Amino acid sequence: VKVYLNGDMAAADGALVRADDRGLTLGDGLFETLRVRGGDVLRRDAHLARLRAGMGVLSLDGAPGDADLARALDETAAANEIQDGVLRLTLTRGPGRRGVLPPDDPRPTVLITAAALPGADPAPQRAVIARVTRRNEHSPLSQCKCLNYLDNILARQEAETGGADEALLLNTAGRLAEASAANLFLVLDGALVTPPLADGALPGVMRADVIAQAGGRERSLAPDDLGRASEAFLTNSLGIRPLVSVDGAPIGAGEPGPVWERLKKIP
Amino acid sequence: VKVYLNGDMAAADGALVRADDRGLTLGDGLFETLRVRGGDVLRRDAHLARLRAGMGVLSLDGAPGDADLARALDETAAANEIQDGVLRLTLTRGPGRRGVLPPDDPRPTVLITAAALPGADPAPQRAVIARVTRRNEHSPLSQCKCLNYLDNILARQEAETGGADEALLLNTAGRLAEASAANLFLVLDGALVTPPLADGALPGVMRADVIAQAGGRERSLAPDDLGRASEAFLTNSLGIRPLVSVDGAPIGAGEPGPVWERLKKIP
Repeated sequence: VKVYLNGDMAAADGALVRADDRGLTLGDGLFETLRVRGGDVLRRDAHLARLRAGMGVLSLDGAPGDADLARALDETAAANEIQDGVLRLTLTRGPGRRGVLPPDDPRPTVLITAAALPGADPAPQRAVIARVTRRNEHSPLSQCKCLNYLDNILARQEAETGGADEALLLNTAGRLAEASAANLFLVLDGALVTPPLADGALPGVMRADVIAQAGGRERSLAPDDLGRASEAFLTNSLGIRPLVSVDGAPIGAGEPGPVWERLKKIP
Repeated sequence: VKVYLNGDMAAADGALVRADDRGLTLGDGLFETLRVRGGDVLRRDAHLARLRAGMGVLSLDGAPGDADLARALDETAAANEIQDGVLRLTLTRGPGRRGVLPPDDPRPTVLITAAALPGADPAPQRAVIARVTRRNEHSPLSQCKCLNYLDNILARQEAETGGADEALLLNTAGRLAEASAANLFLVLDGALVTPPLADGALPGVMRADVIAQAGGRERSLAPDDLGRASEAFLTNSLGIRPLVSVDGAPIGAGEPGPVWERLKKIP
């Protein structure tokens, strides 16, 4: 396994980052998870556009340009001979001295890792609604895929403790925002709907594709809407998964339905 | 400069962390900042108790015990010959594979860095109220000193852009919670008051000392209370600083006052 780190390709166990990297000390950075299929990096430009938007929110300057990042992604997939798999690009603000403020002359860290993935159909998912925490729709970080992932980790741990696969996060107003590592879609009254970004949903790259290709619409959703849904889905860059139960109650018939048969054709 | 890393003392530029450390990839960890004075680590046990509480919230298992961590702190201060300065202890969940869930057999990373600090009286501080983001009092992370520091970074960047020293963070209900790297105290109607933990204030170690030694009391505070305060303070492990203006408006007489003369004697 080879890892891309600041322009070099290293063996995975030789990929080391400075202990004063602000990604490590303060979670000061962003990441993207990208699907590779048939050796191609899917939706690469959309991922890089979201990463660039996150750099704007964080005022994270000094990172390589999109063309360099795209080349690094391709090289990492090729070096690992990944046909079907996943890349993760991590961008941090790089080393910094003590304190909250970034250095005047930041030298961001770029790290890309690769892993193979099975290409099989995803298993139907069971979720809980996380009680341990809420997603903060008042923070612009809800719109960035940033390295501050602890709320998501806490929610997923709660799901695991409850024997579930995923956790749905409510925002501070009690609306459905997303899952710990995926966006949420429901089929309500025959319409495919998903929480709006203003409710704290991450602007998922696959979410945007589902909206564009399957006619999804943004709509604020309450937990009660889960009981009225005929189907539900979890979407992220790795794929679209049917969500068949929440807190033990089935969604619709409790099994993948007709809209799923349509959505699963989205690459 | 020497750095403690997982039991070894290394030169600072040789302190390297694995690129798959969850502290780096997901902000999955905690930290403590400790004041050293006269070679002694101040409030060491209180810091370790808060760290231990944070491990409970994160279900972060496998870390060294308090006695080992205390010894490592003392050794790092001694190795750097720090008389007056600061230590930072970072504890991450250690290396992990792809994905949100922690590994079954976590091997946490312990990192301790040291720096000298000037012992002079702190300069009076000017703050802004952050508009860019809000503190999430609905998350248990508001009670942990965790590696997810991006909201605080955004707030502090806003302060710097506005020519201020610090940023006060409102919680999602619009109440004052704390500053980007300090707790907030006001003198209101002659009483020393500070936002309650339930409003999203971090349980600061110095905050607890000010409450115990100077008779501070918890009280929910609104931005309007700043205009009624006769004095204000920012407290953290490095000390207590007078806060003399917010958004350009003076607090009280706009200079350190009589309560400050009393508080500054707290070590």
